[in-house]
Amino acid sequence: MIEPDFEKAGGLVPAIVQDAATGEVLMLAWMNREAWIMTVETEKATYWSRSRKQLWVKGETSGNVQKVREIRLDCDSDAVILKVEQRGAACHTGYYSCFYRRLSGDRLEVTGERLFDPEDVYGK
Amino acid sequence: MIEPDFEKAGGLVPAIVQDAATGEVLMLAWMNREAWIMTVETEKATYWSRSRKQLWVKGETSGNVQKVREIRLDCDSDAVILKVEQRGAACHTGYYSCFYRRLSGDRLEVTGERLFDPEDVYGK
Repeated sequence: MIEPDFEKAGGLVPAIVQDAATGEVLMLAWMNREAWIMTVETEKATYWSRSRKQLWVKGETSGNVQKVREIRLDCDSDAVILKVEQRGAACHTGYYSCFYRRLSGDRLEVTGERLFDPEDVYGK
Repeated sequence: MIEPDFEKAGGLVPAIVQDAATGEVLMLAWMNREAWIMTVETEKATYWSRSRKQLWVKGETSGNVQKVREIRLDCDSDAVILKVEQRGAACHTGYYSCFYRRLSGDRLEVTGERLFDPEDVYGK
């Protein structure tokens, strides 16, 4: 099976997640070999959670699943793009993209709207 | 100055580089605090080269500079998007994007065309 160069990358490669239809970047997550294999085989985006130290099928808890439409590797095989169909929103804050803040001089300007209230999805 | 959470990220944050006009993802690079400050102040994309262990003003050698049009931070402040105007090509292989290979079953399909021959730019 084709795979990123996990050895060179120290076990984890960054995965850039893009909306397959618009190209909007939704999030950056991390994959180990197991997450890669599960993603390729199931077409459901699966990552390695560095904070929880476990595999993480995106949307398993929240319902905000990502159906994988295309996978790309970079020239060095140490970074990945997943082009996905995002159900709901990608960000745990309720924004569609995790990158909802734009640098504007000495402040961060919020762009986009919240699609859900995190408390409704994850509890308080 | 607003900045990513370099401490939490262990000193380096991944920077996703997008074509400002089309949204195409061109490359993934790494920034330390110095690279961040230089990028914000000069509007020329500047990274930390993990292999060469030095600051790297993108395009300084090759001419393939990136003029920064927008900067975004993710919800955790540990990943960055730079939306840029790319001169020439982003990839040292001569392709416009480093992500010129698409997974297609058990092989990688090359997409796009080489815009330059690396030997012409970097020598043999």
